Amino acid sequence: MCLSTIYSVSDGKKEELMSDVAQIKIENGGLFLINMFGEQKYVHGRITSVDFVDEHSVLLEENPGEM
Amino acid sequence: MCLSTIYSVSDGKKEELMSDVAQIKIENGGLFLINMFGEQKYVHGRITSVDFVDEHSVLLEENPGEM
Repeated sequence: MCLSTIYSVSDGKKEELMSDVAQIKIENGGLFLINMFGEQKYVHGRITSVDFVDEHSVLLEENPGEM
Repeated sequence: MCLSTIYSVSDGKKEELMSDVAQIKIENGGLFLINMFGEQKYVHGRITSVDFVDEHSVLLEENPGEM
């Protein structure tokens, strides 16, 4: 199991969006985060970094103004 | 350790770009894939899917025509 934690980064500050994420699907300019319980969260933004080893984290840049 | 394999998907066909990937950094419309040996590969494209659990895989859509 290699679950990951997803963070939104803005002005150098990390905000946790979802933990125990099993899968990310990118569609229509946004991301569906799906955790180990099958819960989904949609985020409008893009991935800037994925770390599979040290932190098991994904960093995102949100674009709340765009649709 | 949760190393991942990165695939380019085109016309429904998966082509392996790099295995044992530890980190992905997204910059200037492309992706730097960095494996456990510190080797880097640049791919011009975008992530379409990340699976942290079953396949430990990342799927990409390459944009070879764009710069």
